[in-house]
Amino acid sequence: MSQTFDITLLNAASVAGEAVLTCLEERNAPIGQLTVLASDGDAGQTVIFRGRRLRANPLSSFDFSAVTLCIALESVTPAVRERIRAAGCALIETHGEAPAAVAALNPLSVAAGVRSPLPAVVAVAPVLAALHRLAPLAQVSITACLAASGRGQAGVEELAKQTAQLLNARPVEPVLFSQQLAFNLLAATETVEEDGYTATERQFVTDMQHVLNAPTLSIDVTCVQAPVFFGDSVAVSVRCTEPVDKAAFVAQLHTLDGVELLEGNEWPTAVSDAVGQDGITVGRVRTGLQDAKQISFWLVADNVRYGTALNTVQLAELLFNLHA
Amino acid sequence: MSQTFDITLLNAASVAGEAVLTCLEERNAPIGQLTVLASDGDAGQTVIFRGRRLRANPLSSFDFSAVTLCIALESVTPAVRERIRAAGCALIETHGEAPAAVAALNPLSVAAGVRSPLPAVVAVAPVLAALHRLAPLAQVSITACLAASGRGQAGVEELAKQTAQLLNARPVEPVLFSQQLAFNLLAATETVEEDGYTATERQFVTDMQHVLNAPTLSIDVTCVQAPVFFGDSVAVSVRCTEPVDKAAFVAQLHTLDGVELLEGNEWPTAVSDAVGQDGITVGRVRTGLQDAKQISFWLVADNVRYGTALNTVQLAELLFNLHA
Repeated sequence: MSQTFDITLLNAASVAGEAVLTCLEERNAPIGQLTVLASDGDAGQTVIFRGRRLRANPLSSFDFSAVTLCIALESVTPAVRERIRAAGCALIETHGEAPAAVAALNPLSVAAGVRSPLPAVVAVAPVLAALHRLAPLAQVSITACLAASGRGQAGVEELAKQTAQLLNARPVEPVLFSQQLAFNLLAATETVEEDGYTATERQFVTDMQHVLNAPTLSIDVTCVQAPVFFGDSVAVSVRCTEPVDKAAFVAQLHTLDGVELLEGNEWPTAVSDAVGQDGITVGRVRTGLQDAKQISFWLVADNVRYGTALNTVQLAELLFNLHA
Repeated sequence: MSQTFDITLLNAASVAGEAVLTCLEERNAPIGQLTVLASDGDAGQTVIFRGRRLRANPLSSFDFSAVTLCIALESVTPAVRERIRAAGCALIETHGEAPAAVAALNPLSVAAGVRSPLPAVVAVAPVLAALHRLAPLAQVSITACLAASGRGQAGVEELAKQTAQLLNARPVEPVLFSQQLAFNLLAATETVEEDGYTATERQFVTDMQHVLNAPTLSIDVTCVQAPVFFGDSVAVSVRCTEPVDKAAFVAQLHTLDGVELLEGNEWPTAVSDAVGQDGITVGRVRTGLQDAKQISFWLVADNVRYGTALNTVQLAELLFNLHA
């Protein structure tokens, strides 16, 4: 396997971009030349990859026929998308309308051009898939408490700034977030639309249905903005079509790559178990007090490192295998 | 209605105690003499009631036959309980094993000696009762993000201290909370037991079943410790036995005393809508995307002022009416 691939990374000078670069390095991905791209206003920003400083090239003049793959960590306009397609370059992205894919669940989908979905979908989907193998899922209720870093560096900085303002008895001035996030929970991460859902929540449901190959599964999700810097925390409650054997589910979780399980009085938190981790940690697994078809759990995962970077890089690795 | 009642308040010099005193004052409750009690170690602590400073009497020597009612904001030993009973004094408490009661739902239960349940139960129960009148509840999934003040003043101070330590790059040393709470969410508020639940969660379920008079209702709850000073935030997802009419549910909510509803792109937070409020605020009401029997909402309420103080005082008022 000495074959290498030239790739380009759009919006590399971001929280997610730096995590993708770290992940490519640590996994020793078969990358030859890596080009860094930025929207023209941000061209010239630099990142470090394999010990070398790379300067971002302007997106508008890049020749995509020079690379096998573009990883796009920001939304791509239809015109750019067409340039990528016409150049015969593959595209793995985090925004847009390509089908969602979780590397562990959808290994073959990458050939068609895919999107890494919301980090919380990436984290929850493999666990739901494992449960579904034991007892078919009937209804899933999810409260996903999303980290501020989901909004990039600006989200991290605003949470820190708001917190410092409050501790110094100064007024908070929300900019990126719609309200005070420090010492608070926001019941929506963006505009709530006519039907009562945010676009993120609707996308969460369709993406989860898609990656689980369960297009009619009833999923209810609330995406909450939490005053946490890094790491999503998700409470999941599932009703299956038949009684669930907790011990069998636990045994399944132990077999999953990248899944750690805390049992008994141990349970994970974003700070202690998610930040910087290449996996998800599950805890609080329990069956219903009244209903043997109910099972609940809690999980945490690093939204940037795991939910975005690792899945994106794993999808790239699947693509390289197809090309190899 | 010039009749007044002499009452005593145990553990008045606490976050909850001060809220109860404020509530008694603001509602102009028919109180004659108010005595303040404390466990003997805390005797001598003072509180303000109706502009006068009251000094806490030692619990061990108090003659309960001098008062009509004892409001106990801490757990009462069997011996003290027996002294209260033998003196013919009524007891409304926040701990212990008396049946849970929510004033709006269980007005007659107060005669037998009652307990004000977990503040999140007090907040959620009237909304579930309203929904149940429209479409019988089949299964309820709740993620209750509980404020630090649920652990009293010490909880508030520890969250503030942890936050300041982190912003100053100093290590956090959890004392009351099991782990770092600042910029984090804790998946349990106390020890998780053999069956996967905390005592608080099990009590939440049995109390909710009791106050709703629905002893077999399937309820799944995760009680999360949130890095919020005051105000519980609760995500509720319900499956009913028949399709739910969202407009009819919204109309029901508008008729409920003490319930405010935010609609469209407005939704409540603990900071903006709960703190210091004598009511609950509901938002994000929406029916299931796939399942017309599903309905979800989010609500916030001040855990101290509403969930503890107001319910306790309203229960006392019901008791006074029985005695009047």
